[in-house]
Amino acid sequence: MNKEIHLVKRPEANPTQEHIKLVEGERPSPSQEEVLVKLLYVSVDPYMRGRMSDAKSYIEPFQLNKPMEGGVVGEVVDSKSDALKQGDLVTGMLPWKEYTTAKAESLRKIDPSLGPVTTSLGILGMPGLTAYFGLMDIGQPKEGETIVVSGAAGAVGSTVVQIGKISGCRVVGIAGSEDKIAYLKNELGIDETINYKTENVPERLEASCPDGVDVYFDNVGGEISDAVYPLLNKFARIAQCGAIASYNVPNDQGPRLQMHLIKSSALIKGFTVGDYQDRFKEGFTHLAQWLQEGKLKYEETITEGFENIPHAFFGLFEGANLGKQLVKVAEPSYSKQ
Amino acid sequence: MNKEIHLVKRPEANPTQEHIKLVEGERPSPSQEEVLVKLLYVSVDPYMRGRMSDAKSYIEPFQLNKPMEGGVVGEVVDSKSDALKQGDLVTGMLPWKEYTTAKAESLRKIDPSLGPVTTSLGILGMPGLTAYFGLMDIGQPKEGETIVVSGAAGAVGSTVVQIGKISGCRVVGIAGSEDKIAYLKNELGIDETINYKTENVPERLEASCPDGVDVYFDNVGGEISDAVYPLLNKFARIAQCGAIASYNVPNDQGPRLQMHLIKSSALIKGFTVGDYQDRFKEGFTHLAQWLQEGKLKYEETITEGFENIPHAFFGLFEGANLGKQLVKVAEPSYSKQ
Repeated sequence: MNKEIHLVKRPEANPTQEHIKLVEGERPSPSQEEVLVKLLYVSVDPYMRGRMSDAKSYIEPFQLNKPMEGGVVGEVVDSKSDALKQGDLVTGMLPWKEYTTAKAESLRKIDPSLGPVTTSLGILGMPGLTAYFGLMDIGQPKEGETIVVSGAAGAVGSTVVQIGKISGCRVVGIAGSEDKIAYLKNELGIDETINYKTENVPERLEASCPDGVDVYFDNVGGEISDAVYPLLNKFARIAQCGAIASYNVPNDQGPRLQMHLIKSSALIKGFTVGDYQDRFKEGFTHLAQWLQEGKLKYEETITEGFENIPHAFFGLFEGANLGKQLVKVAEPSYSKQ
Repeated sequence: MNKEIHLVKRPEANPTQEHIKLVEGERPSPSQEEVLVKLLYVSVDPYMRGRMSDAKSYIEPFQLNKPMEGGVVGEVVDSKSDALKQGDLVTGMLPWKEYTTAKAESLRKIDPSLGPVTTSLGILGMPGLTAYFGLMDIGQPKEGETIVVSGAAGAVGSTVVQIGKISGCRVVGIAGSEDKIAYLKNELGIDETINYKTENVPERLEASCPDGVDVYFDNVGGEISDAVYPLLNKFARIAQCGAIASYNVPNDQGPRLQMHLIKSSALIKGFTVGDYQDRFKEGFTHLAQWLQEGKLKYEETITEGFENIPHAFFGLFEGANLGKQLVKVAEPSYSKQ
C-alpha cells in the first residue's frame, strides 16, 4: 500500500485536520523515461497555504481529493530512464505519496558532497535562493545600511539575516520565541532582535533602528509590517516575500501604506523564487561558497513520519519551527546519506 | 500693503478656512543678489496638504503663522542681481505673498516662446515632469500594455494618459465628473473611462481591463486602488504618485495589499518629482517636443484673485478642477505675456 495526503476541503481561515485526509493508494510503476521515487524528506512551507485556496495566484491551486505536493528529497528505487539509476538521491516538486513516479527530467540529482541532502530543501534549495534573490536583487543592501527581517528565524529569514551581515549591514530580526531570539543572537550574530510576542514592536523597532530602515525583507506582513513602514528611509526597498499574518485572515484590513511609500520614495516588490529561474546558478554558487566558508549556518526542525506532515505544516502558522521545517518520511533503501 | 496667506492651525482632516488666515504685511525690499517678485499665478497642489501637517515627510512642514508656499509664476519688478532684470518672468517655489523677495539663483527664468507662461506650472513644470518620470521610469510602459490612471483628468493624470497613448498602450482613466470623462474621451483619446462617483469601479475596471493591468499610475489611493490591485498582471508596476483619498483621513484603513504584490510579483514605488532632479532636462525636452508636435494637450482651471487661493486649494479635495488648478493673482506691470 502507498500512503497519500489529500486536500479534501479548502480552508477559509487556518488549515486544520478537517481539510486534509490520509488516504491509502496503490504503489505506481514507472513508465518509459520515468522513475519510481521513494520519499525521504518532505518540505512544508507557508506558501502552500495559498495553493489550498482556489483564488487566482502565481501557482495553480491544489486539486480537491488529490495529493498535495511540494519540495521533497527522495531516492530512485526503480528507473526506466538512462538519466537516473536506482539509489540516486533526487530533489523536485512531487506529490505527498510515499512512493511516486516522475519524469526523470523533472528531478534534480543531488550531489551529497555539497552538504547533507536536506540542504537541497533549505539553504541550498528554494528557501536559500529566495533569501538570496529577494535580498540582493530587490533589497540591494549597501554597507552600513539597516536591514529589518521579519520571520527572521525561519528558513528564508535566517539566511537573509546572514547575507545581510555578509553585506556589511546592521541587521534587526523579528521572531516569536526566546529560542529563536537566542539562535539569532548566539548563532547568527545579528545586531538586534525583537520578540513580537512579548515586546512592543513599534517601540523596540524605533529603538533598534536609530538611523531608520533602508531594507525590509518581509515574510510576515500584518501588524509587524505596519510598524516598519513609518521608519522607512528615503529610497528604502522592501522585498515582499511572504505575508503569513494574512494567509489565514479573510479580507485582512490594516492602515493604508501608500503615504509611507510617497514620503520616503520607497519601493515594495513582491516576488517568488521562480521569477529568478534564469539566475539560479548564480544563487547556488554564492550560497554554496558561503556555506563552505562557514559564513552561512542553517537550522532544521525535523518531524518524523509521513502521517505527521499535516501537523508539521499546521505548526508553521504558529511559528513552531526554527529554521527549515522538514518531515523525515523514510530511510533510503539503497543509498547511504 | 502686501497680502499674505498664513497657516494658522494644522488640520486633522479636511483643510478649511479656519486653518488659514489672510494677513496684511509690508512689501519687502530686495537685498544684494535678490529680486522683488510680483506674483502673477499661484499653483495649488494636493501635496501641500502634507506640508500642513507636522508629520515626518519628504518635505518640511509649513510653519505656523508664516505664509504657505508653492510653485508660482511671477514678474521681477526690482532687481539687485545681474542674473535677472525688471520685467523678467520667472518661476520658482515662493511664499504666498503678493510681493516677495528671493535670491535670483533660486528662480528659473521663463522662455515665453515655449508656450503660455502658465505651462511652467503645468505641462512644462512640476506636474508634467511628475507624469513623465513616474510613468516612464517606474511604470516602464511597453507597447500594447494596459495602463490604469487614477485622477486621470488632473494636471498630472491627464499628462500620464497622453504619454501612455504616445507609448502605444491601452489607457483606462478614472475620474469623478462627466465633464472630466468627456474631456478624457473627446480631447485626449483615452480608451476607457470610469466615473468613480456614478459607476461601480471594481466591475467597470474588470470590464475595461480584459487583459489585466500592467501599469497603474496612482494619484488617489483608497478604495479606487483597492479595486485595481486584484487585476495586476505578473510583473505589474505601480507608480505611487499621490494618495489624495487618504490625505484627510486620519489612520485610514483598507485591505492589506501585500498578498496581491506577491501573487503578481508586482512593484509599487513611491516617488516625488524631486527624485529626478538630475534628469529634469531630459523630461523638459520630451514634454516640450510632444507639446510642439501637438501630441500633448493640457487644460487649466484658473481662479481669479489672491484672496481666493485657499478656496481653490480646498476645491482640489472635492475634485473641482479639470487639469491644472491655478490662481491668477495679478497682471504683469512691465512685461507682455
